[in-house]
Amino acid sequence: MSSLLDETHDPALTSWVETANDPATDFPIQNLPFGRFRRAGEAQWRIGVAIGDQILDLQRAKLIETDDMNALMRAGTARRKRLRLALSQGLRAGSPRQSTLQSSLVPQTAVEMGLPCRIGDYTDFYTSIHHATTVGKLFRPDNPLLPNYKWVPIGYHGRASSIVASGQSIRWPIGQFKAPDDEVPRFGATQRLDYELELGAFIATANPQGEPVPIGAAEDHLFGLALFNDWTARDIQAWEYQPLGPFLSKNFASTLSPWIVTMEALAPFRVPFERPASDPEPLPYLESATNRASGAIDIALEVWLSTAAMRDAGRPAQKLMQSNFRDSYWTLAQLVAHHTVNGCNLQPSDLLGSGTQSGPDAGQGGSLLELAMGGKQPLRLAGGDTRGFLQDGDTVIPRGYCNRPGFRRVGFGDCTGTVVAAREFQHEAA
Amino acid sequence: MSSLLDETHDPALTSWVETANDPATDFPIQNLPFGRFRRAGEAQWRIGVAIGDQILDLQRAKLIETDDMNALMRAGTARRKRLRLALSQGLRAGSPRQSTLQSSLVPQTAVEMGLPCRIGDYTDFYTSIHHATTVGKLFRPDNPLLPNYKWVPIGYHGRASSIVASGQSIRWPIGQFKAPDDEVPRFGATQRLDYELELGAFIATANPQGEPVPIGAAEDHLFGLALFNDWTARDIQAWEYQPLGPFLSKNFASTLSPWIVTMEALAPFRVPFERPASDPEPLPYLESATNRASGAIDIALEVWLSTAAMRDAGRPAQKLMQSNFRDSYWTLAQLVAHHTVNGCNLQPSDLLGSGTQSGPDAGQGGSLLELAMGGKQPLRLAGGDTRGFLQDGDTVIPRGYCNRPGFRRVGFGDCTGTVVAAREFQHEAA
Repeated sequence: MSSLLDETHDPALTSWVETANDPATDFPIQNLPFGRFRRAGEAQWRIGVAIGDQILDLQRAKLIETDDMNALMRAGTARRKRLRLALSQGLRAGSPRQSTLQSSLVPQTAVEMGLPCRIGDYTDFYTSIHHATTVGKLFRPDNPLLPNYKWVPIGYHGRASSIVASGQSIRWPIGQFKAPDDEVPRFGATQRLDYELELGAFIATANPQGEPVPIGAAEDHLFGLALFNDWTARDIQAWEYQPLGPFLSKNFASTLSPWIVTMEALAPFRVPFERPASDPEPLPYLESATNRASGAIDIALEVWLSTAAMRDAGRPAQKLMQSNFRDSYWTLAQLVAHHTVNGCNLQPSDLLGSGTQSGPDAGQGGSLLELAMGGKQPLRLAGGDTRGFLQDGDTVIPRGYCNRPGFRRVGFGDCTGTVVAAREFQHEAA
Repeated sequence: MSSLLDETHDPALTSWVETANDPATDFPIQNLPFGRFRRAGEAQWRIGVAIGDQILDLQRAKLIETDDMNALMRAGTARRKRLRLALSQGLRAGSPRQSTLQSSLVPQTAVEMGLPCRIGDYTDFYTSIHHATTVGKLFRPDNPLLPNYKWVPIGYHGRASSIVASGQSIRWPIGQFKAPDDEVPRFGATQRLDYELELGAFIATANPQGEPVPIGAAEDHLFGLALFNDWTARDIQAWEYQPLGPFLSKNFASTLSPWIVTMEALAPFRVPFERPASDPEPLPYLESATNRASGAIDIALEVWLSTAAMRDAGRPAQKLMQSNFRDSYWTLAQLVAHHTVNGCNLQPSDLLGSGTQSGPDAGQGGSLLELAMGGKQPLRLAGGDTRGFLQDGDTVIPRGYCNRPGFRRVGFGDCTGTVVAAREFQHEAA
């Protein structure tokens, strides 16, 4: 891992942007995540880097040539590392470039943040064995963890067009669902709306169709990570998902955080990939010495909830749970190696979801389904309210950050979405 | 249906492009499908319309302003209909524009055909109840047709990046699979490579996120249809597909035909949407008077096979089966209404696969899995060879056409793909 560290990770570095030196900021000079922003009245998105409570406008600062994030992704790891070093040096306290760069700063409060890029194909994985086991028990009590789980990094394709940026509201979905006792399915607003706490990994460089990415090269194909909320209608899911998987239960919307924290920024937080000794070894195409030594990443993940009632009462958002990405059963390198082993071509700006990140303990479920046991044990909120599933006006706030003694905290920023009531469905005259 | 017909469908129309008047052509003046082509040495794709054995270059003919098919799709139904009328009038025998348009013709044999557009999100449905039942028997003998099938137009998201144009070869995929008697999964080239005969429908106009498309408006969101081969590795599929559906078993490649036959060209072939009286009525959001009267389309579909041995012996391709899209359990309008009922936003150039189109009889399976009963009853080919699943060098050729007394035949053109041997997988040094 030490080979992944360079001067940009030095915890002693401070920035001339004073707010970047606040120990609580998500965006110290050791982070430098990429995102897209625009000022009021601008139509075009611009590429920026978060530093404290400011954004450095990269094109205005003459650090990139176009404002096409997809092109920056495609440029690959070496180019991104050079840019990171230039940013670290330019934003460092005492930099001779301070006066030049200062005019390319814009306060984060002054802009709208968009999706970090135009998303290509979106794949969602299922890497938390704790999530798979708990959810499996609810959907298939007799058969919670399927026999393929410990061999295959299970994944499926998702919907890219309906992924929205943090802050956008989520229209309550309607559809078909059927309780076990119903004779025929019902049609209407979902009664079991849920969130899923995930990370999303962006692909940087492509692999040609027909050419697998070996696990040792897999991380070179990654750009970085963002927070991801895979909103899910559980009743629609239960009725539709066999035999081809989830569809309308998820494709109405997913929320992505605006900042992509690069693989470089995450380097200090790499940890060994560990499995219970009783579990099978991964097949050789999913295994390497590097993956064993440092394939996992220590990222604390949380979900916070703010209800309309809490806001009316002036209460702050409430933390519902915490888990850690290091507990994932598969690493990012394994996901890339598996996804391409059949020759499938990944492309710059493709998004790989991690799947819901639940921890080993009962209170660490990454969805309400898990925390409230399918609605049977509603969560008690501060103020006395309860939640089995989401309600109108609920704001869901996934959070993520890395802490390690001897290094600066690196965080992911905002990923919020508020659910709003369904419209009445207008049927056709038959 | 008569309201859908206009002068462009008149079977008496002939073209000054003589080959368009051949009764056997797929591309009479009543068809006018859109595709993208380029001449040798050109980097950019150009939009063309097939007429007999020629292509009319639309930008050179000053009939469109840019060569962006996605923009033409986005422009919507009314614009496409005006363009169709202008094309029909200009290409008609006796047209005063003949001498102008003549210089914008290029022979189909002189160009490369690409994918008809940059594909957005790709969804695959499962609309043949005959396919679902036969395949269900093989995967779940005790439970072939799941309880949701007659209520939910089952669909799932697929991979857009690996969809290739007709004529491109398909690299034999490798992956994990596990026979029931295997203690641990194997890794290697699939032993059960298959095709799936499908139609692909392209979306023209978008619906905003959160706003369902009512079934009565659904066809206005469609551009037209092409042939589609959803290559599938059955052993990988059987091992990976639970609980989230097919993934690596399908996303290594799919083949799309180059010409999009528009909804207008298909108007003469509309037929009633019919179901057995004992089956449930679709829920109201999936039902309309128009859908009942003419929601289905009479399109004959076939799969032809040419093996390396056949080609060596100078034998022609062999027809394996025929089915008809009118036997689909769900109509295109129902697919659009269902896909958007939860607010999911469809976009111009999104692709909706029909799912494998199998007919009611045993010889009408749209995949080898069905025709050869999971490999147990291999097909006997002319020349004595047999096929349980595909072999290296096999060329699979889906075909499609519409015939109706009193109208000109409308066809879909080529959709071919040849499978080539797997590369040896290069493992990492661990």
